Amino acid sequence: MRLTLAAARQDGQRIGLVPTMGALHAGHLSLVEAAGKECQRTVVTIFVNPTQFGPGEDFDRYPRTLEADLAALSGVGADLVFAPASGEIYPPGYASFVDVGPIAQRWEGQFRPGHFRGVATIVLKLFHLAPADYAYFGRKDYQQALVIRRMIADLNVPITLRICPIVREPDGLAMSSRNRYLSADERRRALAIYEGLRIAAELARAGERNANMIAARVQEHLTTAGGMRVDYVALADPETLEPVAELRGETLVAIAAWLGKTRLIDNVTIEV
Amino acid sequence: MRLTLAAARQDGQRIGLVPTMGALHAGHLSLVEAAGKECQRTVVTIFVNPTQFGPGEDFDRYPRTLEADLAALSGVGADLVFAPASGEIYPPGYASFVDVGPIAQRWEGQFRPGHFRGVATIVLKLFHLAPADYAYFGRKDYQQALVIRRMIADLNVPITLRICPIVREPDGLAMSSRNRYLSADERRRALAIYEGLRIAAELARAGERNANMIAARVQEHLTTAGGMRVDYVALADPETLEPVAELRGETLVAIAAWLGKTRLIDNVTIEV
Repeated sequence: MRLTLAAARQDGQRIGLVPTMGALHAGHLSLVEAAGKECQRTVVTIFVNPTQFGPGEDFDRYPRTLEADLAALSGVGADLVFAPASGEIYPPGYASFVDVGPIAQRWEGQFRPGHFRGVATIVLKLFHLAPADYAYFGRKDYQQALVIRRMIADLNVPITLRICPIVREPDGLAMSSRNRYLSADERRRALAIYEGLRIAAELARAGERNANMIAARVQEHLTTAGGMRVDYVALADPETLEPVAELRGETLVAIAAWLGKTRLIDNVTIEV
Repeated sequence: MRLTLAAARQDGQRIGLVPTMGALHAGHLSLVEAAGKECQRTVVTIFVNPTQFGPGEDFDRYPRTLEADLAALSGVGADLVFAPASGEIYPPGYASFVDVGPIAQRWEGQFRPGHFRGVATIVLKLFHLAPADYAYFGRKDYQQALVIRRMIADLNVPITLRICPIVREPDGLAMSSRNRYLSADERRRALAIYEGLRIAAELARAGERNANMIAARVQEHLTTAGGMRVDYVALADPETLEPVAELRGETLVAIAAWLGKTRLIDNVTIEV
């Protein structure tokens, strides 16, 4: 991989990297397309990273669909696919981890302790294994993108981060590899997340500035219309992820909620 | 720095990196010379890294001798010197750290909590800031070399580590920037460290295999002949740094001891 990419760089080609866990959907493919627009070589990695799953999470049942992934990637111009085995990435004696500090502690970090440590570590390893000029991540994992941005800046990683828009199903549900866990009934109720984000935006547009008030209305919708168990409805500063009490300028609204055994996340930024 | 090194690499030059905290002595210069033997470009970094000093350690009084360092480096063929300001390396909001696990916990790690976290972090940053093919570290900081080796392997850092021999004063004292803290009397007594390592080697050569017995004899020499306060006399596996009970094959003997306010370290590997 390194020799191939070094030769490409020698030829003046820009290299794009799209790290994924496979089970690719249109959201992932939009990242590959974004890479194709500014890079001459696009590398896609497929690795279900065990260190970012907590005990009892869905590592074992996470969908592995390599053949379908490769077929999908060949249709959107990926040049190289790197799909290592777990033992290549974490050989016996493996011990090193990257911690990015406070940005990883709240929200997802609170409900998934150790998750972002695993994410930062695998992403840094992939940056080293497939040295690229640009790395493409989806905005659906908003906090993850900030964690990676923090790591790149702090550790002086020579790569430029691109955060790409959320891709949604026609009814508004954010694309996710985990959507395939949903039963037909859960799939219908999952829409309450997107509706919740729209409720927040509409309340803000109508003049509501109290973050707790908005969060409570969203949470109510998730539980009543969606029948969900809610991990959080965050109204937070989009840069620091600190909770806000009152809406001013840009505010991130982020949701994590459970439909049965499936945990979904989504977010939107609203401006007042 | 990156553009310069990218251009050099484009020209097929091998790049060597020698990370230092300045206050250069013949040990450092031997690293630059080793780099010069296998690389066409040698980068020396000079940065007294605050994150590897604990509270109450000697960060503030650590010798800063930039002009003398530059003069010394020009004599041994260094091509580029990178001496950043602290605020460039750790700007406000800095939060990311690398932890390399068990290899960093014992010995130095026990007496200097957080030390190797700071070391691993700054070294990784320097690897990113001055991308090189080879990195040169001295064997005097034996555990540090293992920490960096672990980090490079675990995080797939695209660099090859070279660990170079300890350079000693004519009487045997290992070269160290901290030797300049020593009073004339302390300098004389400091030799007990080297003598202690030789005592260990001679005991092993004479057939002693009991590690505790050897450690006790060394410790006694440090306290009586050296008047030192001893942090540890380690007899350990040279790969894992786990303590050994009985000498077999190669054993690392490592010492950390205080002369007044100056803490010195040294080590040797003995084979039976």
